[in-house]
Amino acid sequence: MSKIDTIRQAFPILNETVHGKPLAFLDTGASAQKPLCVINAEKEVYEKYYANIHRGVYFFSQESTERYENVRKVVCELIGSHDPREIIFTKGTTESINLVAHSLGNLLLDRGDRVMITEMEHHANIVPWQMICQAKGSQLIVVPVLDDGSLDMDFLHANLDSTVKIVAVTQISNALGTVNDIAAITQKAHEVGAKILVDGAQGVVHEPLNVKDLDIDFYVFSAHKLYGPTGVGVLYGKKELLNAMPPYQTGGDMIDEVTFDKTTFAPLPNKFEAGTPNIAGVIAFETAIRFVQEVGFDYIVEHEKELLDYATAELSKLPEVRLIGTAKNKVGVISFVVKGVHPHDIGTMLDHFGVAIRVGHHCAQPIMKRFGVPATARVSFGMYNTKAEVDQLIDGLKKIIEMFS
Amino acid sequence: MSKIDTIRQAFPILNETVHGKPLAFLDTGASAQKPLCVINAEKEVYEKYYANIHRGVYFFSQESTERYENVRKVVCELIGSHDPREIIFTKGTTESINLVAHSLGNLLLDRGDRVMITEMEHHANIVPWQMICQAKGSQLIVVPVLDDGSLDMDFLHANLDSTVKIVAVTQISNALGTVNDIAAITQKAHEVGAKILVDGAQGVVHEPLNVKDLDIDFYVFSAHKLYGPTGVGVLYGKKELLNAMPPYQTGGDMIDEVTFDKTTFAPLPNKFEAGTPNIAGVIAFETAIRFVQEVGFDYIVEHEKELLDYATAELSKLPEVRLIGTAKNKVGVISFVVKGVHPHDIGTMLDHFGVAIRVGHHCAQPIMKRFGVPATARVSFGMYNTKAEVDQLIDGLKKIIEMFS
Repeated sequence: MSKIDTIRQAFPILNETVHGKPLAFLDTGASAQKPLCVINAEKEVYEKYYANIHRGVYFFSQESTERYENVRKVVCELIGSHDPREIIFTKGTTESINLVAHSLGNLLLDRGDRVMITEMEHHANIVPWQMICQAKGSQLIVVPVLDDGSLDMDFLHANLDSTVKIVAVTQISNALGTVNDIAAITQKAHEVGAKILVDGAQGVVHEPLNVKDLDIDFYVFSAHKLYGPTGVGVLYGKKELLNAMPPYQTGGDMIDEVTFDKTTFAPLPNKFEAGTPNIAGVIAFETAIRFVQEVGFDYIVEHEKELLDYATAELSKLPEVRLIGTAKNKVGVISFVVKGVHPHDIGTMLDHFGVAIRVGHHCAQPIMKRFGVPATARVSFGMYNTKAEVDQLIDGLKKIIEMFS
Repeated sequence: MSKIDTIRQAFPILNETVHGKPLAFLDTGASAQKPLCVINAEKEVYEKYYANIHRGVYFFSQESTERYENVRKVVCELIGSHDPREIIFTKGTTESINLVAHSLGNLLLDRGDRVMITEMEHHANIVPWQMICQAKGSQLIVVPVLDDGSLDMDFLHANLDSTVKIVAVTQISNALGTVNDIAAITQKAHEVGAKILVDGAQGVVHEPLNVKDLDIDFYVFSAHKLYGPTGVGVLYGKKELLNAMPPYQTGGDMIDEVTFDKTTFAPLPNKFEAGTPNIAGVIAFETAIRFVQEVGFDYIVEHEKELLDYATAELSKLPEVRLIGTAKNKVGVISFVVKGVHPHDIGTMLDHFGVAIRVGHHCAQPIMKRFGVPATARVSFGMYNTKAEVDQLIDGLKKIIEMFS
């Protein structure tokens, strides 16, 4: 069996039909489907050894605790950290960013300081910084995006000075597919003494950054985009920074001692994990990471590049289609608009051909505005997609364009 | 088959053995085990129709969205709300309380104002209030606990005046099992113009409050204690309060419009649900609620009362055992210490008899201090427990006491 067939067989949902058509799932950028091994891993937790973790001295509690804690090590391997205490589990990328914006913002920001973000950020990497800037009397500075969808690095170099305390930038744009030069941005940020947070929600799926090699301060992503369960996120942070930061949410499991006068907090990583976490989700996330590693990032990157090139070429043959985002370094995502057809209608009609794509502003309104569109149609690829699915998309699009012309 | 046998058959984990002994799981207060229907419901989401929710126009996204949104209605039914927009999904009780402490605290609290909590609260209902009081120059006032483990209601009546803006109280103490008179406390709070948050983490399992009948402002609980998945919490809040409160976490799905100058927020419930939520967990939570309703709260309450009375009587026969918390109105939980044996040792040794109980401070250090103990052994009951399991506990305890005497 070919590798792609083996991969597809691992995902039960790919056997489903939609409106009597085989499913062409081209919305992995929003959330990936789950292989059976991940689904079963979560089931096994509950069937075989589930209990609440930490402080339980009985067998199932210790078993659950060990498996949960072990996932930190697996995440460390994935992103090149050497210390599991640098891995905080959250409910998702959005919470990870909120945590850092709140806690690091309170630690570092003062009146007159600046936080640098970019015009291509997801709302999750814009609004939390707006809120903390507002609270601290700091300002946002926004790196513009060039016509091809790449960052204006000249602007970044000219404006990233010592008034900037935090740089928050996405590894890969969820709306355009642009891959940013994180190494260069991190180096420049550190030259002026700024800390950097990299939003890896899209990036980790294609190529997890090595946080130590690149010297990244914070790296955040979600399990559900990496073929794992919903409700699990990761915050990697440098130990010395996490140690210096005030806690975010408070409650059980993150304290050292509580009296009504004063509370002292637990050491890392518990300090940032108040309350009972998503135990089964985190444990099953390990299976997802192992699965992805077994398939191999080399394969995934090459496979998705092939699909991207093929789909880009096919879409470019349609004169009614305008691609939004044509950066040289681009992966996994194609945004486009079709002359005379609203993206919403494209999405609805493609659904009837069994093709699932996302349409809308992709939680990135500023970059939509930058390109003068209220919304786009967005195709995004996962490890399981095929050229046949791209053909299914193109066939559907042709029929829609014909219908509207 | 008897009802208890039918119930037990629904939980696969109860067939497991521990150290060669049948499992007597007496730690449901920390987290409940999951019936197969709940485990399978989560599996089905991923196998049959999973996609990210909201704004997806294709079939699976709409199906997932509909099922996710429907759970709000099911929660409404459970607690007597009439408006699904009053149901916010969080990652757990702790996050629900943090959200309210932060957001309502910022709305209501000023220098000199007071927040009333009680001596029996879980850390999750203490520390978030400490933090917001510190930030706003407000004070905590703590209702003491009497010798039997019940609240000092005279103190509450004497001190709950108009300087108190928020009352935060647990429905049932996780460490003592004491059931508080929420109707009376709510009435008194409202007389002086204070808002009330009720921590239902333990309570919802035994008897969900009717938030409308009791006129409760905020009611919070977790799915994992109600036989549902980990990583899902509920915040019920009155619409007019949630509308007035500033957002908590920010990001995708909770905004109306984002520009770099200004962000406007989505209406309820989305305003408080930034980012991709625990989609599969929330959907499977519906199955958990249905399952519990089918078993029936009447049955659960009666069954657990029987176990509580039986276990209390049996424990009271052991002269070495001191019960901590003997309030008249008490359910589900028995805390105790054994003369000459550290609770940690009790837990570890009981494990070898197949008995799983919790030992420690139960994230409630102040109430431990109140009773002059650093920790207790805690037995807590779920719908699936039996008298035979209580016997297994008592047998084990007797052997331990003998060994240490």
